[in-house]
Amino acid sequence: MVIVLNSLASTEQIEKLKQELENYGCSVWPTYGKFQTILGIVGDTGKLDRDYLLSKHYVEKVLSVQEPYKKANRTFHPENTVIRAGSETIGGNQLAIIAGPCSVESQEQIVGIAQEVKAAGAGFLRGGAFKPRSSPYSFQGMQQEGLELLKLAREATGLPIVTEIMSVKQLEDHHEDIDVIQIGARNMQNFDLLKAAGQIEKPILLKRGLSATIEELLMSAEYIMAGGNENVVLCERGIRTFETYTRNTLDLSAVLAIKRLSHLPVIVDPSHAAGLWWMVESLSKAAVAVGADGVIIEVHQDPSNAKCDGQQSIKPERFTALMQSLRAIAHIENRTL
Amino acid sequence: MVIVLNSLASTEQIEKLKQELENYGCSVWPTYGKFQTILGIVGDTGKLDRDYLLSKHYVEKVLSVQEPYKKANRTFHPENTVIRAGSETIGGNQLAIIAGPCSVESQEQIVGIAQEVKAAGAGFLRGGAFKPRSSPYSFQGMQQEGLELLKLAREATGLPIVTEIMSVKQLEDHHEDIDVIQIGARNMQNFDLLKAAGQIEKPILLKRGLSATIEELLMSAEYIMAGGNENVVLCERGIRTFETYTRNTLDLSAVLAIKRLSHLPVIVDPSHAAGLWWMVESLSKAAVAVGADGVIIEVHQDPSNAKCDGQQSIKPERFTALMQSLRAIAHIENRTL
Amino acid sequence: MVIVLNSLASTEQIEKLKQELENYGCSVWPTYGKFQTILGIVGDTGKLDRDYLLSKHYVEKVLSVQEPYKKANRTFHPENTVIRAGSETIGGNQLAIIAGPCSVESQEQIVGIAQEVKAAGAGFLRGGAFKPRSSPYSFQGMQQEGLELLKLAREATGLPIVTEIMSVKQLEDHHEDIDVIQIGARNMQNFDLLKAAGQIEKPILLKRGLSATIEELLMSAEYIMAGGNENVVLCERGIRTFETYTRNTLDLSAVLAIKRLSHLPVIVDPSHAAGLWWMVESLSKAAVAVGADGVIIEVHQDPSNAKCDGQQSIKPERFTALMQSLRAIAHIENRTL
Amino acid sequence: MVIVLNSLASTEQIEKLKQELENYGCSVWPTYGKFQTILGIVGDTGKLDRDYLLSKHYVEKVLSVQEPYKKANRTFHPENTVIRAGSETIGGNQLAIIAGPCSVESQEQIVGIAQEVKAAGAGFLRGGAFKPRSSPYSFQGMQQEGLELLKLAREATGLPIVTEIMSVKQLEDHHEDIDVIQIGARNMQNFDLLKAAGQIEKPILLKRGLSATIEELLMSAEYIMAGGNENVVLCERGIRTFETYTRNTLDLSAVLAIKRLSHLPVIVDPSHAAGLWWMVESLSKAAVAVGADGVIIEVHQDPSNAKCDGQQSIKPERFTALMQSLRAIAHIENRTL
Repeated sequence: MVIVLNSLASTEQIEKLKQELENYGCSVWPTYGKFQTILGIVGDTGKLDRDYLLSKHYVEKVLSVQEPYKKANRTFHPENTVIRAGSETIGGNQLAIIAGPCSVESQEQIVGIAQEVKAAGAGFLRGGAFKPRSSPYSFQGMQQEGLELLKLAREATGLPIVTEIMSVKQLEDHHEDIDVIQIGARNMQNFDLLKAAGQIEKPILLKRGLSATIEELLMSAEYIMAGGNENVVLCERGIRTFETYTRNTLDLSAVLAIKRLSHLPVIVDPSHAAGLWWMVESLSKAAVAVGADGVIIEVHQDPSNAKCDGQQSIKPERFTALMQSLRAIAHIENRTL
Repeated sequence: MVIVLNSLASTEQIEKLKQELENYGCSVWPTYGKFQTILGIVGDTGKLDRDYLLSKHYVEKVLSVQEPYKKANRTFHPENTVIRAGSETIGGNQLAIIAGPCSVESQEQIVGIAQEVKAAGAGFLRGGAFKPRSSPYSFQGMQQEGLELLKLAREATGLPIVTEIMSVKQLEDHHEDIDVIQIGARNMQNFDLLKAAGQIEKPILLKRGLSATIEELLMSAEYIMAGGNENVVLCERGIRTFETYTRNTLDLSAVLAIKRLSHLPVIVDPSHAAGLWWMVESLSKAAVAVGADGVIIEVHQDPSNAKCDGQQSIKPERFTALMQSLRAIAHIENRTL
Repeated sequence: MVIVLNSLASTEQIEKLKQELENYGCSVWPTYGKFQTILGIVGDTGKLDRDYLLSKHYVEKVLSVQEPYKKANRTFHPENTVIRAGSETIGGNQLAIIAGPCSVESQEQIVGIAQEVKAAGAGFLRGGAFKPRSSPYSFQGMQQEGLELLKLAREATGLPIVTEIMSVKQLEDHHEDIDVIQIGARNMQNFDLLKAAGQIEKPILLKRGLSATIEELLMSAEYIMAGGNENVVLCERGIRTFETYTRNTLDLSAVLAIKRLSHLPVIVDPSHAAGLWWMVESLSKAAVAVGADGVIIEVHQDPSNAKCDGQQSIKPERFTALMQSLRAIAHIENRTL
Repeated sequence: MVIVLNSLASTEQIEKLKQELENYGCSVWPTYGKFQTILGIVGDTGKLDRDYLLSKHYVEKVLSVQEPYKKANRTFHPENTVIRAGSETIGGNQLAIIAGPCSVESQEQIVGIAQEVKAAGAGFLRGGAFKPRSSPYSFQGMQQEGLELLKLAREATGLPIVTEIMSVKQLEDHHEDIDVIQIGARNMQNFDLLKAAGQIEKPILLKRGLSATIEELLMSAEYIMAGGNENVVLCERGIRTFETYTRNTLDLSAVLAIKRLSHLPVIVDPSHAAGLWWMVESLSKAAVAVGADGVIIEVHQDPSNAKCDGQQSIKPERFTALMQSLRAIAHIENRTL
């Protein structure tokens, strides 16, 4: 950590601050300039509170040198983490392909899609039972009934199920039934939910918030890991920018940044990023080419009559064709599907 | 609502869509162009699902003409809403001044600040008991004990208390003790929490999310109101942009937009917006000048030793001086403090 | 075009506006709702001025249905445009690979790099002679001397040269010497420069501005094309967002959007987007996978001693290896390098 | 400046880098940590090139401690700069009120508005002769003829004229006729134009780019000042964000930031920021309350028939009323109009 003091800082204050920092077990190396004094600080700076330091009026800036997350940090855990869910893994050499409808609508629908995506080579089934909707007047998902149908689809295909929960209560009630528990973009900083997710053992698929920095995403992962659950998969799903042609702007550089900063697996959601079905295939290929550990894709038999997100869903036959291309690109990168 | 069809749309599809829309009780007026057909739709378009329409591949665009919120909409409720909390109001001619520390730290601290801000003319006491922090390793607030201290401060001064709750459980356990319940920026789209807030009668102070549009903020208010609680106060607290000098970019135009679109009161939080104590006074003046219904300001006796947000807190003596300026600006706008 | 009138609009005003629009050769189809009147307008709406319509206080919204660009619009020009530069093309089945240093530093440097990238399979040489720098105290490029060295490198290798000009004067003085003239992100809306570029015949490589929408980029292309020069290549080079880990956020969805909206070729600049050399290879692969018509990559023999942008340049040997991967991915998409 | 080295840095490399930095006249103070070495650097760090340092692969981060601008920097010039234009000043105790139409349309129009805004108390007349328009098909201004009409309006009222030039040629041809030369947002990093503006003595009104950081705005001012022209007025005119209700998001915190970082005057343009006439008055009041040195406001006798920007122009009678409010708010801040 580096603390820059402004010209208001007296020798006394500098000395006092130095001592305070040393009491935290850090060692402090000052640089005296004409207009500023710079304190270089090494040691266990994790205990230092940036905000507390900034609140001193003779402190101009606090520059972080080390990342504020530990358990999620690659520095202290150089090997890639591989997460198990049912018979599948996420983060290893094999890419995780998660596919299915935005929301569960009926037994016929979800079992049918599950069979089709399995036949095409998907490793996981996605499907929403509890749906976060920006309008209180929109379809809110089939709730518990939807979850029961997902279980039937799992039984029929063997595919582990990935589904979102939106509250601590839902997590407590249903975590045993779900193979990979999704925490959505809007809940990325729902800290009570993150803490609860830290208390269970099931893999958590944590989506990046609409305007979350990469560091904030990793700090949210840290919340879960600090509670004891280290099975966290991160998901880039587009960020909010000034561009309105696409629903969000898919940030594929984030995949590279996260893989450098952290050992956790990262997957990409091209469906929610673009919000446009005809972009999904090309963006999926780009995601595999850039080095993501998998993709999560919305597939629906009849997008025009889907209960939600039809405009970003592709049909099973397109998904099947897409799998061929993904396999070929993965092969170039020495990975498998 | 306006639906733009692309050149793929067959006469048959257009006719079928027209009928479907009319079945929803809407009337449909088509405009036939060379490359596109435009459908103008009036009537109860609130029941139409934008996403569902977009999922049809012959639909190019769906343009909303009417706002998707009803209860929060000024069109159907032209008068300003005035909300009561204890003996105070928010949204009337008198500005609501909410002041206090980021977090409750001790009885002496919170009662002391409450007395100082009351003497300066504040109408409400703020103070955090449950703190949303981006790091799991940061101080998380005094929790229930902090709430008890807030109640003591209320007893000592008569000031209604404004404090954040972060989960459905906290809301259920504590809503009776709090005068104005804050839902923070990070929970603006925590829909389960919004639904729960709709089930109580206490005023809700709903903060705009870091990257929430004005429409999304109003839709979140609609969630609460649709549940039955119409006592919603909105709060502009800065949005996330590319500029990093300030923590967030305070969007004062949003106050004007919200007051045109909605009848709900809007206040401004200059402390969290800028994240810099020396900007708070000037931004507060601008907020009053622009026409906000109040401000929420962080005040601390000893910012350099505050447990959180010291860098954005001002001292009681500055707050007292600021009140004089705010009073004078309010007077120009024919409002009172 | 759709014009939404608010409740202030009188029957007289609506009639007058209708007539005015018809005088422009448009036909107007009104939809009368309870709170609003909607005018659907078809015909030659290109002559209508959105701002002029919005200035009427009884006009609530003006919704564009058709794109405001014509010459750049795929609707009126369904075939992909293929642009010739020297013996090379951009926009056809073969991908355009443009490589070279940020700036020309010496004859040895530029000729050396030109030979290396040519050997690896690049089709064009890039190199800056006139450099836009955010600080007046930074190296501003070798200017005219740099251009002479680029010509020597072209002579030595046969590679067409791609270089930026920053002003009308530079364009007039040097356009005959350059094969592809780059207009940089900061000049994307330097309208005088765009107009001047419309007066020549050389291909223009137009980079997207840091916060330019896709529509604005296409409107800037339209400026050049309206002047008579239809040889425009567009370049996605990252946009400015709240994320600061990368210099900009590469928006690969923009490639897909542009290719749907326009017939012009689109290439990707991963070097300027990320600003980090270790991301360049993976982002280049993603660009090819998503369907870009080429990439422009910074290559330098000794990045640590480059006069600019060393942190985003890769070494020739890495570039050579990258070409193998790009070739393989292009092959999957039935394209060649 | 602080340079953070990663674990790849060898003792030899550190020593070599240290020497190199010392050769630039800097002194280097190292801090040795377990995972990183931190170099604190003081002295004339202005000569050091951030990009050059970052290009070394053993350099992890370069953290700036000092601002990269000198002439614009308040540290070296603590007093506010007051700029003279005709008989008026910008930056002193008296606020600069600049008013007039978006573009000059006729002699009657511009002289008429000039007389009205002068009567209301404005100190400067604005009016566009050369118009930057995003569409090549939109009205481009009356060009030189418009400039002649502005001169007539100046003659008739004595008001100094503020108008935009868009190219080096226009600057050379017309700078003697203009009292305050505006460089628009889209040209904020047109470096050739900035350099040319540095060669004259007339005041330059430099507008913040749509996505320019405060530091970049100050660096563009530095370009002009480095050339010898220190008469620079900065203008906050809204930045591009995800919010689309307003054309741009007015960033009033930027006024406070700029006044702390620089001695140059800062004014606010509420018309272009919001793009909505009914927000202009309230935002102007907020600008004065926050401490801006003036405002620039679009005024038109007949906004519904204005040739451009009618939707953001207010009528003379509203402007006159607004001046009363601004005067009262200025008075509270001990300033005059």
